[in-house]
Amino acid sequence: MAELEKPRLGVAMIGHAFMGRVHSQAWRSASRFFDLPMEPQMRVLVGRDAQRSKQAAQRLGWVESATDWRRVLERKDVDLIDICTPGDTHAEIAAAALEAGKHVLVEKPMANSVAEAQRMNDAAHRARAQGIHAMVGFTYRRVPALKLAQELIAEGRIGEVRQVRAQYLQDWLGDETAPLSWRLDKARAGSGALGDIGAHIVDLTCFLTGQRFAGVSGMLDTIVAERPVAAAAAVAAGGIGGGSGGLRGGPGASAEASGTAATGPVTVDDAALVTARLSSGAPVILEASRFAWGRKNALRIEVSGSRGAVSFDFEDMNVLHYYDATQPARTAGFTRIMATEPEHPYLEAWWPAGHGLGYEHGFTHQVVDLVRGIAAGKDPRPSFEDGLHVQRVLEAVERSSGAAHQWTEIHDHERR
Amino acid sequence: MAELEKPRLGVAMIGHAFMGRVHSQAWRSASRFFDLPMEPQMRVLVGRDAQRSKQAAQRLGWVESATDWRRVLERKDVDLIDICTPGDTHAEIAAAALEAGKHVLVEKPMANSVAEAQRMNDAAHRARAQGIHAMVGFTYRRVPALKLAQELIAEGRIGEVRQVRAQYLQDWLGDETAPLSWRLDKARAGSGALGDIGAHIVDLTCFLTGQRFAGVSGMLDTIVAERPVAAAAAVAAGGIGGGSGGLRGGPGASAEASGTAATGPVTVDDAALVTARLSSGAPVILEASRFAWGRKNALRIEVSGSRGAVSFDFEDMNVLHYYDATQPARTAGFTRIMATEPEHPYLEAWWPAGHGLGYEHGFTHQVVDLVRGIAAGKDPRPSFEDGLHVQRVLEAVERSSGAAHQWTEIHDHERR
Amino acid sequence: MAELEKPRLGVAMIGHAFMGRVHSQAWRSASRFFDLPMEPQMRVLVGRDAQRSKQAAQRLGWVESATDWRRVLERKDVDLIDICTPGDTHAEIAAAALEAGKHVLVEKPMANSVAEAQRMNDAAHRARAQGIHAMVGFTYRRVPALKLAQELIAEGRIGEVRQVRAQYLQDWLGDETAPLSWRLDKARAGSGALGDIGAHIVDLTCFLTGQRFAGVSGMLDTIVAERPVAAAAAVAAGGIGGGSGGLRGGPGASAEASGTAATGPVTVDDAALVTARLSSGAPVILEASRFAWGRKNALRIEVSGSRGAVSFDFEDMNVLHYYDATQPARTAGFTRIMATEPEHPYLEAWWPAGHGLGYEHGFTHQVVDLVRGIAAGKDPRPSFEDGLHVQRVLEAVERSSGAAHQWTEIHDHERR
Amino acid sequence: MAELEKPRLGVAMIGHAFMGRVHSQAWRSASRFFDLPMEPQMRVLVGRDAQRSKQAAQRLGWVESATDWRRVLERKDVDLIDICTPGDTHAEIAAAALEAGKHVLVEKPMANSVAEAQRMNDAAHRARAQGIHAMVGFTYRRVPALKLAQELIAEGRIGEVRQVRAQYLQDWLGDETAPLSWRLDKARAGSGALGDIGAHIVDLTCFLTGQRFAGVSGMLDTIVAERPVAAAAAVAAGGIGGGSGGLRGGPGASAEASGTAATGPVTVDDAALVTARLSSGAPVILEASRFAWGRKNALRIEVSGSRGAVSFDFEDMNVLHYYDATQPARTAGFTRIMATEPEHPYLEAWWPAGHGLGYEHGFTHQVVDLVRGIAAGKDPRPSFEDGLHVQRVLEAVERSSGAAHQWTEIHDHERR
Repeated sequence: MAELEKPRLGVAMIGHAFMGRVHSQAWRSASRFFDLPMEPQMRVLVGRDAQRSKQAAQRLGWVESATDWRRVLERKDVDLIDICTPGDTHAEIAAAALEAGKHVLVEKPMANSVAEAQRMNDAAHRARAQGIHAMVGFTYRRVPALKLAQELIAEGRIGEVRQVRAQYLQDWLGDETAPLSWRLDKARAGSGALGDIGAHIVDLTCFLTGQRFAGVSGMLDTIVAERPVAAAAAVAAGGIGGGSGGLRGGPGASAEASGTAATGPVTVDDAALVTARLSSGAPVILEASRFAWGRKNALRIEVSGSRGAVSFDFEDMNVLHYYDATQPARTAGFTRIMATEPEHPYLEAWWPAGHGLGYEHGFTHQVVDLVRGIAAGKDPRPSFEDGLHVQRVLEAVERSSGAAHQWTEIHDHERR
Repeated sequence: MAELEKPRLGVAMIGHAFMGRVHSQAWRSASRFFDLPMEPQMRVLVGRDAQRSKQAAQRLGWVESATDWRRVLERKDVDLIDICTPGDTHAEIAAAALEAGKHVLVEKPMANSVAEAQRMNDAAHRARAQGIHAMVGFTYRRVPALKLAQELIAEGRIGEVRQVRAQYLQDWLGDETAPLSWRLDKARAGSGALGDIGAHIVDLTCFLTGQRFAGVSGMLDTIVAERPVAAAAAVAAGGIGGGSGGLRGGPGASAEASGTAATGPVTVDDAALVTARLSSGAPVILEASRFAWGRKNALRIEVSGSRGAVSFDFEDMNVLHYYDATQPARTAGFTRIMATEPEHPYLEAWWPAGHGLGYEHGFTHQVVDLVRGIAAGKDPRPSFEDGLHVQRVLEAVERSSGAAHQWTEIHDHERR
Repeated sequence: MAELEKPRLGVAMIGHAFMGRVHSQAWRSASRFFDLPMEPQMRVLVGRDAQRSKQAAQRLGWVESATDWRRVLERKDVDLIDICTPGDTHAEIAAAALEAGKHVLVEKPMANSVAEAQRMNDAAHRARAQGIHAMVGFTYRRVPALKLAQELIAEGRIGEVRQVRAQYLQDWLGDETAPLSWRLDKARAGSGALGDIGAHIVDLTCFLTGQRFAGVSGMLDTIVAERPVAAAAAVAAGGIGGGSGGLRGGPGASAEASGTAATGPVTVDDAALVTARLSSGAPVILEASRFAWGRKNALRIEVSGSRGAVSFDFEDMNVLHYYDATQPARTAGFTRIMATEPEHPYLEAWWPAGHGLGYEHGFTHQVVDLVRGIAAGKDPRPSFEDGLHVQRVLEAVERSSGAAHQWTEIHDHERR
Repeated sequence: MAELEKPRLGVAMIGHAFMGRVHSQAWRSASRFFDLPMEPQMRVLVGRDAQRSKQAAQRLGWVESATDWRRVLERKDVDLIDICTPGDTHAEIAAAALEAGKHVLVEKPMANSVAEAQRMNDAAHRARAQGIHAMVGFTYRRVPALKLAQELIAEGRIGEVRQVRAQYLQDWLGDETAPLSWRLDKARAGSGALGDIGAHIVDLTCFLTGQRFAGVSGMLDTIVAERPVAAAAAVAAGGIGGGSGGLRGGPGASAEASGTAATGPVTVDDAALVTARLSSGAPVILEASRFAWGRKNALRIEVSGSRGAVSFDFEDMNVLHYYDATQPARTAGFTRIMATEPEHPYLEAWWPAGHGLGYEHGFTHQVVDLVRGIAAGKDPRPSFEDGLHVQRVLEAVERSSGAAHQWTEIHDHERR
């Protein structure tokens, strides 16, 4: 083993809030556990505020920090841009990075609109011809139990997919006195529960079934329409270091919690209810909510097929439940597979059976798959095309919700 | 105690399939465990076939049997008609019984159409003025854990209702070679998963929240559109003794399983997906499916409020999960309440804590509440008005499903 | 079907407390659901108090009542004596009944001492030669999921038995102000947690493995040694109608709860810890406790073999968990079998899949197996020999506990 | 924040198998997430084989490697020795390190005998006077849910401790063809299931209750007494890099799996059954087994008190179940606390609620507590005295097992 002779992959990360922290752990850890074809080098962390960025770089293990992402794109020693900022900045950064010949990992949701996602996908398409790769950070695809589910379905172990039911339930907005944050501001976040957590179950549905969405009917609801306004400065402090993924009182939130008597409108959805069909016609039902008291990060998905079913709940993330309908009824039942054996996806690198993994490991696996994809010269999934499709689904849900739930078809005709 | 001096309540039951069997157990058991104000007398069982009805009467504990329900309505010693036949016969029997001055218990779904349910409700309205009472058999309201949930919500223990999510999942149609039965014939059954099991979660939503549905968007799907035809005779044998409630290979099914190579169309839905709003505006999401492999009778309902939540799954029917959001985060969580203590609804009559009840006990409790209601001179819930509302919801789902999922309002303006 | 022409089996039941109530429900229900070779006739209920016994007989469905069990033994129309009294009366009644040529069903624990159990077994041995049968009421053997477990083990589905671990946890004595009752009095109850609930897991271990215990090491503990004394009259009222099986504040308890400042000693064990070996040498670990807060009736048993395992918890009584170690590691796991399919033991008589059974149904199945055994002319298990073995295990635990946990062998040499 | 000015803590780690890998991840991660008073420096990894140690150092993030741990003790830039070797080497290394003025973290079990543990404790006692600290690596104390349990008990939330029941179940030896490894060799491992995994539940019992063991009765069992011998070279390769903690087919195992027809004896226990009493007299029941098919790492512990209970299972490691017996029976039940809120131990450093942690994080928290303890000048728990007590319990179990399960008292009189 001569790891120092491996090709190096210089990485720059933009943003250093929640997502920046977990991405950093992944970059630090991936090559400690997996044999990677390239050695990631954590070259530079980019944030808006020089002082805070410098501290974050030290804390998170980046060699240096910077405040101007455009100048980072000019660096020869940077090969990959990892974008962990709020969604309204993704398109601009990602397109510029790809044009500058940098591989891109962008946090989900890919963008705040289909137009932005389309622009990003166009850029990825052009870059691909130059050997430059792009990927969207739907990390739940890398949870071993969910990867196992995908493999079982692909192998035909549940037969033909007949139905998908999924929920992504959290409760961090249950308290109506929790203050406004950038996540509740449509201009910044693009969407509420739909884009933040609903996007994950839309993507997982595609991932597990290998299909696209053909159409949707949607209902968006803002359950608490007014919330206390946090101090202006605090809101601004959310800054470029936004991050992603349902947090309860995350770093930003506590900063913003200073009290004023004023309230402001919540401009995103608190809950999203969706009925849909896959390209095969199979019906799908989805719910995303940040008001489901007692559900902390209950990403649940169940796929029923003609020969069996798989079922998953992130609150018990090391477990996949699998039902094999070809078994005799006398001993049939959901089998609780602890996906922690060496035979399970990604597990050969980790601990003995039963010594479970946590949330962060999906990000480590994401780095592994991304680096391997780059080394192999092919886009790892979920590609920007995958991300664009999710964006189309989200937009269709919004349109349907605004049009009396009218059935709204999704056309990927622009797909390349 | 002088039970023999209690007023007697003469009962006739029509139908003796699955539902007839469980209703009989309830009539036999109720006064053994509960102090009832009237003593039920199991006078006569009515079926289409004289010989089979006689045998059923003996087996199930009815004094005698008969084949003509109209003549039974003339009997002075019969005070109550318990209707356990398929839905297409409910309206005629129930209306006639009420007009004949008999109390009525009718299995769900109340009817196969709103018009029929309206006719029944009109009859119940007139009968009520004569001291005659009517009730619909949504027995899950009498599962102790669900009754406890209703009480906790009514007491404000979860605050204001914000969201309802419910599923009723079975898998007895998962096998595409299972033959056609009357339950898959729209003319007989009226509806498929929607009316058979979806009706239960519609009713429970009303029961738990104390609200009505304001509107729905629905998607019905027939997953397996053609199935083997069972012999004509066997189909006919489903007869009047139809029964109700999701069965897998129930009595009828096995009779019908004789093989012919012919197939016929399934004319009802296999799965129903619904998004809806309550009268308060709170969003609701519902799924009913008979194709959810591994889910045997997974009636699940969760109500999230502003101060907490309750959650239930019939596959663990003695348990209610309750989340109290006013608790400190450090020790907050769903509390698994085994609703088997003397403090829980109906439990004072049964066994020590933890010695759980089963499916049939909801029917026993239904008899208890019905007899007490009659003795007290008031309609026990769910009333025919409640049943009519459910019927309206089901019909609105069907209309919406046929109209590109268009939002469809529900008007109870005819309600009395 | 001509049920009236079946041979009849006249039954007398002694005792009418908790156990009498559940036995009555079983006698009333068995032939309603199962085709029995003989038709049970609930002829007479026997209690100490004439007035209360008469009321109980009416309530519970017995034709008449009596107060002198010896005279009942003389009745020609009584074929079977069902003994539901406290353990200190079992030996005398059972022996007399068997000598009078009556079949006997006796509640567990079979007796309060090995000597008593031996006497009963001797009587059963003699009676058997006359075609008279005897059985002990370890009803958990008749829970479908546990019967399924026994069948799977007998078929070799888990290979050779290697280990048994079991718990029977309740919490009804957790409150140290709960008053003394006959169950806490060694003279009446014979034993505490050990005999009341520990006996069940001892019996189930034998049932599931098909083996006997070879030896034990035991620790008995009285956690709350003094409790409030209830009024003398109330204590006496526990009377002959004692019943059996862990109750929390059962009928007796509430009667006894009248307050006096006096306290008295608890003379039985509150918890019993046992390590043991089966005849094959396989190690066993058992715990019985009435102080396990939050565990209402958690009878749990897991058997690990060379090729798999089965696991059960009565708090989820319709489910058996089965692990098949011959499966590939990738999809291996405990399979949650809902033992509610027609393919499962006893289930052909009941409801559709997933419409679970409750505590009482084990008693109904016990009646079924007992009546079938009598009709077939053979002792149904658990026989008095089985019960005697359990008694020997309990006694050995007590002896070991009193002798510094010394290993104590169990000899069934007197066995016939 | 000026982290570079923090005092540095030079660390050397001995051993680089499973335990070495997870310790390395902890040393790499702790200061990334927690504000530590000293900055750990991963100076040198020590192994037996120069080449393999060098590769391991690179892979695991250590600046350099070495093969002679005695020379490492002479280094001025090394302040702490982290011992991850098999148990038979602990005493010598730990004593020498402490005498050399190095802080020590030693993996569990602390030693292979009480004499060794006593020697280590004596050394720690002397070292403490010089400001040198020692700690045993019972990392399960640092699982947030278990730390929460300990806090709740210490606060009196379950009242007085009445009973402890615990299991540590694995199944990696279930296959009788799995080959011999150093873990099955008494000379190397000291003990089998008892010392490897039983030690954890002994320690956790002390941790949660704040008590010591007063005496035990034990049964050790070797279920599969002969196993295939792996090639001699492969056995040797287990080398110094042994590691610790139940592994299934860990690094060593696969190396050893080369086949020869020879078999050799298993000289350790496969399962350990223990009944015990705490210093308060409270009864305890423990089982450790590596033959519990389907249980991958089921470390389960439940403590019942006079006012409630806590219950934990490592297979669902982010959850603590808490029963508050002071609640009204109507809403009482075990509350499922997802110990992933900022209010929970160690969680302020990690992800949003519900985004669970994994096995490795207990090791990270161990580093945090150790470094903080050193900086604060006090031994973090579990101290060597704690470890010595566990060793005494293990030895008493062995003695009792060899003496007909005789009750065996544990005396900590030598304790300082």
